[in-house]
Amino acid sequence: MKVAILGTGSVGQALAKKILSLDHEIFIGTRNPSNTMENTESDAFGNPPISAWLKATPEVSLVDFKTAVEKGSNLIVFAMSGKHALDCLETVGDSLLNNRVMIDISNPLDFSNGFPPTLSVSNTDSLGEQIQAKYPKLKVVKTLNTMSNPVMVSPSELGSEHTVFMSGNDEDAKVDVAEVLKSFGWNENQIFDLGDITTARGTEMLLPLWLRVFAKVQTPYFNFNLNIKS
Amino acid sequence: MKVAILGTGSVGQALAKKILSLDHEIFIGTRNPSNTMENTESDAFGNPPISAWLKATPEVSLVDFKTAVEKGSNLIVFAMSGKHALDCLETVGDSLLNNRVMIDISNPLDFSNGFPPTLSVSNTDSLGEQIQAKYPKLKVVKTLNTMSNPVMVSPSELGSEHTVFMSGNDEDAKVDVAEVLKSFGWNENQIFDLGDITTARGTEMLLPLWLRVFAKVQTPYFNFNLNIKS
Repeated sequence: MKVAILGTGSVGQALAKKILSLDHEIFIGTRNPSNTMENTESDAFGNPPISAWLKATPEVSLVDFKTAVEKGSNLIVFAMSGKHALDCLETVGDSLLNNRVMIDISNPLDFSNGFPPTLSVSNTDSLGEQIQAKYPKLKVVKTLNTMSNPVMVSPSELGSEHTVFMSGNDEDAKVDVAEVLKSFGWNENQIFDLGDITTARGTEMLLPLWLRVFAKVQTPYFNFNLNIKS
Repeated sequence: MKVAILGTGSVGQALAKKILSLDHEIFIGTRNPSNTMENTESDAFGNPPISAWLKATPEVSLVDFKTAVEKGSNLIVFAMSGKHALDCLETVGDSLLNNRVMIDISNPLDFSNGFPPTLSVSNTDSLGEQIQAKYPKLKVVKTLNTMSNPVMVSPSELGSEHTVFMSGNDEDAKVDVAEVLKSFGWNENQIFDLGDITTARGTEMLLPLWLRVFAKVQTPYFNFNLNIKS
C-alpha cells in the first residue's frame, strides 16, 4: 500500500515505523518539511524529533500535507494534534479527501491550562464528528485514540485481553481499517466496532480517564479491556 | 453497620438489596416516602418500583433523606440521579454531612435531549467535585459509577478481570470504602484508586463510552478492565 501519515509527533512516528516495517510505502505529511527537518529538539514527553529517524531512513519521504495525501493513495493515517486537525485538512482540500479512507487517531486535547489537558470539544460533539461533518465524502474511521503509541503498534505487549474501539459511518472503510489493525497485531476479537462516527464522542471522552490512569501507573503499557459476560 | 441509601431508583434498589443481604441495617432515603410508596410504575428501563420490594421487606425503612442520613450513621450511599444530586443533599444539610463517608455512585446524566444522554457537567468539572466543593467536610468517595447495577453488586458474574475505580480526597475514607467493595465481592486487585476527587472527571466521562457499548452489546453484564503490563 501507499500510505499517507499526517503528523510527525510521537503518534505519527510510531505509526510510520510500524507501517514501514510492514513493507508499505509511506509519505509523511507535515506543514513545512524543511522546518520539521531542522527541528532537533525532543518533545515535552522526551520523544526525539522525527528528523533523526528520517535522516537514517532515506526511503521515507517527508512532504507537505497535500503531497502526502496525493502520493499515499491507499490510506490516510491522521495523527495530528487536535488543535491543528482541521487546519491540516484545509491545506489538503476536499477534492483529494473525497472517497478516501482515513484512520483518525487524533484527540481534541487542550493543554492551554496545563496537565492533565482538557478536551477542546466533548459531550455534545467530537473531533471525529467535526472532521466527518466538514468532509462528508471522506471515510473517517476513528480508532487507536484510546491508548499509547507503543500499545497501538505492539498490542501483544499486553497480551490479547484488551480492546481497540472503532467508530465510523462507512462499513467497508471499517472492514479495511480492521485489516490494517490486524496487520499491527490486533486480533479480530479485540476490535470493537461501536457504530457510526457519533460514537467517537465515547472514545475521545475516555482520554480524561486514560490520562489519570497514566499519571498513577507511570507506564504507557496499559489499555482498557471490554469484559463482556459470555 | 447502619447505612443510609439515598435514591430509590434501580441503583439504590440494587445496593439496598445487596447491603441488606450482608446483614447491615439500612435506611433508604427519598424526597417524599409516601409518594414513593404510592408509585407502582416501572421506570423507563422496565425496572419495578421500589415499593413492591419494600412491602415485602418490612425490616427496611423508607424515610426522608435527612432521616436516612441521621439513622444510617456509619455510611452514606449516594445513588441519586445527577439531576437531583445537589438538591437532595441540601435537604440533609451541612451539619449532618460533616465528617461522614459517602460512596458517590451518581453520574451527571442529562436525558433532556433523549438517548444517549449527555453529561450536565464534564471536562472542566465533575459532579463528584461539585458535591465535595459544596460540602468540604463530607468525605466523598466516587466509585461504582462506571458499570451497571448488577455488576456493582455481583462482580464475580464477569470473573475477576475487570476494574472498579475510586476517587476521593480522604485516604481513610477510601480504605473504608474499599472494605465495602470487598464485601460486595470485589477483590483488592480489582480496585483502582485514581487519586483525589478531581479524578472523578475521568470516570464520569467514561459514561458516554459505556452507553454506546451498552447500545451494542444489549446486556448490562460488561465492564472495563484496566490491563497494565506487569
